[in-house]
Amino acid sequence: MTQEQQQWHLARGYRFAGVVSGLRNEPDRRDVAVIISDTPASAVGMFTKNQICAAPVRVCRQRLPSTRTRAIVICSGNANACTGAQGLADAQRMTALVAQELGCEAEQVLVASTGVIGRLLPMPLLEAAIPQAVRSAVASPEAFRHAAQAILTTDTGIKVATRQGPSFTLTGFAKGAAMIGPNMATMLAFLLTDAHLSLDDLQQTLHTAVEHSFHCISVEGHTSTNDTVLLLANGTGPRLEGAELALYQETVTSVCLELARKIARDAEGAEHFITIEVEGCRNDSEARRIAKTIADSPLVKTAIFGHDPNWGRIVSAAGYAGVEFAEENLSLWLGDMLLYRAGTPCPFDVLTASAYLKQNRDIHIRLKFDLGPGKCTFYTCDLTTEYVRLNADYTT
Amino acid sequence: MTQEQQQWHLARGYRFAGVVSGLRNEPDRRDVAVIISDTPASAVGMFTKNQICAAPVRVCRQRLPSTRTRAIVICSGNANACTGAQGLADAQRMTALVAQELGCEAEQVLVASTGVIGRLLPMPLLEAAIPQAVRSAVASPEAFRHAAQAILTTDTGIKVATRQGPSFTLTGFAKGAAMIGPNMATMLAFLLTDAHLSLDDLQQTLHTAVEHSFHCISVEGHTSTNDTVLLLANGTGPRLEGAELALYQETVTSVCLELARKIARDAEGAEHFITIEVEGCRNDSEARRIAKTIADSPLVKTAIFGHDPNWGRIVSAAGYAGVEFAEENLSLWLGDMLLYRAGTPCPFDVLTASAYLKQNRDIHIRLKFDLGPGKCTFYTCDLTTEYVRLNADYTT
Repeated sequence: MTQEQQQWHLARGYRFAGVVSGLRNEPDRRDVAVIISDTPASAVGMFTKNQICAAPVRVCRQRLPSTRTRAIVICSGNANACTGAQGLADAQRMTALVAQELGCEAEQVLVASTGVIGRLLPMPLLEAAIPQAVRSAVASPEAFRHAAQAILTTDTGIKVATRQGPSFTLTGFAKGAAMIGPNMATMLAFLLTDAHLSLDDLQQTLHTAVEHSFHCISVEGHTSTNDTVLLLANGTGPRLEGAELALYQETVTSVCLELARKIARDAEGAEHFITIEVEGCRNDSEARRIAKTIADSPLVKTAIFGHDPNWGRIVSAAGYAGVEFAEENLSLWLGDMLLYRAGTPCPFDVLTASAYLKQNRDIHIRLKFDLGPGKCTFYTCDLTTEYVRLNADYTT
Repeated sequence: MTQEQQQWHLARGYRFAGVVSGLRNEPDRRDVAVIISDTPASAVGMFTKNQICAAPVRVCRQRLPSTRTRAIVICSGNANACTGAQGLADAQRMTALVAQELGCEAEQVLVASTGVIGRLLPMPLLEAAIPQAVRSAVASPEAFRHAAQAILTTDTGIKVATRQGPSFTLTGFAKGAAMIGPNMATMLAFLLTDAHLSLDDLQQTLHTAVEHSFHCISVEGHTSTNDTVLLLANGTGPRLEGAELALYQETVTSVCLELARKIARDAEGAEHFITIEVEGCRNDSEARRIAKTIADSPLVKTAIFGHDPNWGRIVSAAGYAGVEFAEENLSLWLGDMLLYRAGTPCPFDVLTASAYLKQNRDIHIRLKFDLGPGKCTFYTCDLTTEYVRLNADYTT
């Protein structure tokens, strides 16, 4: 067990497994995960806003919120998206296979998938692997690591964030490296807690946490068909209220933010992790729209890859975000260098600015408006020749 | 004179020049253009919707529409954008330099710029070059070619489209190779005619033409601060009405579409010219939103670069365009291969589909919805490692 694994906090009452089904054609690659709650758990979810949503997303939407969820089953390598009626039946079958082993109803099982779009699942492989996974699930860091591995696609490593609160444990893991805004790809996150709280509090907690984390990252702005965040609370601990509930909510946001930053940091081919801080907008929503437009601009992203402090690209991206402002409302910093003050360019040393981009993997861009209290911190990466290579030859 | 130049139709009553000011640091590179109308012309314009708009755009907006425009002056290599009050004064000064030579008012002169954002213009160079350009302007194909060259940035060649109508001539030229959705860059187009028509007809003609042409191209979806399309009609010919006016309007659209396609075809680093045809939407606006979202998706663009018929990326991009539809409403063709029919994937030969992408520079994607009569044809290009290289090191 690695030092990192020794520091993981695993919520009470959950078992995990990650197994090799053969779906990926890579003999040692785990591709099916299960998470089991020993007792019925309260569960809420948030999903892609794409009009084309994968079969597993449809299934989860029907089954949530719930107060009696027993398990989640996930496969990677195939998104089960754009697969019509057969795809929906296959997603339901995945849950039925888990339910059969657990002796519960299929409706008590949730499902997620990530991978290539438009291919039917190889169900014979899953018919064999899913029961095996359920039977092998245990409450150990090793099993948890296997589950966290089994959900990965082009990710370079597992993404885990855990916290130990005074009366609860929160355990989260996620995947995602592209088709983030969510390549093949998708953003999936699973949050497990032994806390005891109402469905309303759980739903509100997840909504707030996602707004400030997964909704504030972008790799290339392409929204996946499969994005899924699930939060389960099995109520093993005492009921959370008042200050404890507030602490719990902060903790969920903190775990989601840690996972979101890990996703942006692991973006395909990326050489820079970029934080875009926008403040002084009319409201948070306008601040996020500006931050996301900058984050999604190929011109901004290629400039940072090239260590080119071409700040006009940043300012001009802000300008087409669909938010009304005047040049005079805006100032811009790259790191601690002020480049543009209230609509007028500032003299700056291009070599120093370029060196900042060259010598740091973590880049900070700050835009300050004078319009109001709205703000947003958004995370993204650069656009590299490696990103293009990776994505030019993904399925074939 | 090349064969192409012999076929150009130059509208009566216009003179042209393109000169070397030294702004580009390339000794033989023309970077200042002037277009002069011998008589006062009616003029209308359409401009970037970016909240950050360049000084020349501000100047043109103030001066249009007009019935007494005499000239346009354009510089390339410097956008005069994000340059504050000094930038505005410099743009005005550019027009005053032309006016002085022509003996007209500065208000009768329009101005456009394209190039790097956030740098002040080297006015001493322009003070010398602009009068020289005005004095050298003549009505010849050679002078017209010099003007068309002088407005280019990363473009690989001039972009010209001309038409000879029964009672009018229409002469258009443009630039643009990136920051198209409009790199350094911008989309500029100048349309000159000897037709005689009302300002209202002129404005309506330009609006319709731009909607069906320049508003239907994207390189990377980054809207420039400097986009400008100007249409001048000096009224040398007879007044256009009825069928002649309709023919004129069609001709302007046709010239704009030819220029727009030339811009998309010359996109930085592009290896494929992609036509996206969307039909069967509720209205044309929804069809365009879907087409533009596909055109701007780095995942779609890299797949085509890689000859990878990963059609799920196309369908999923349509799904996050912000237009409501169900999977069942959508069918998809790549070339003449049906890949997705009413929400269900169709069996297809991956090698044939990949060969289609490999063997053709012109790629056709067609999406058919069953929601209404709305349609749009949109033009874009692939995202290549060369695009990233070009844009990673532009200013430095």
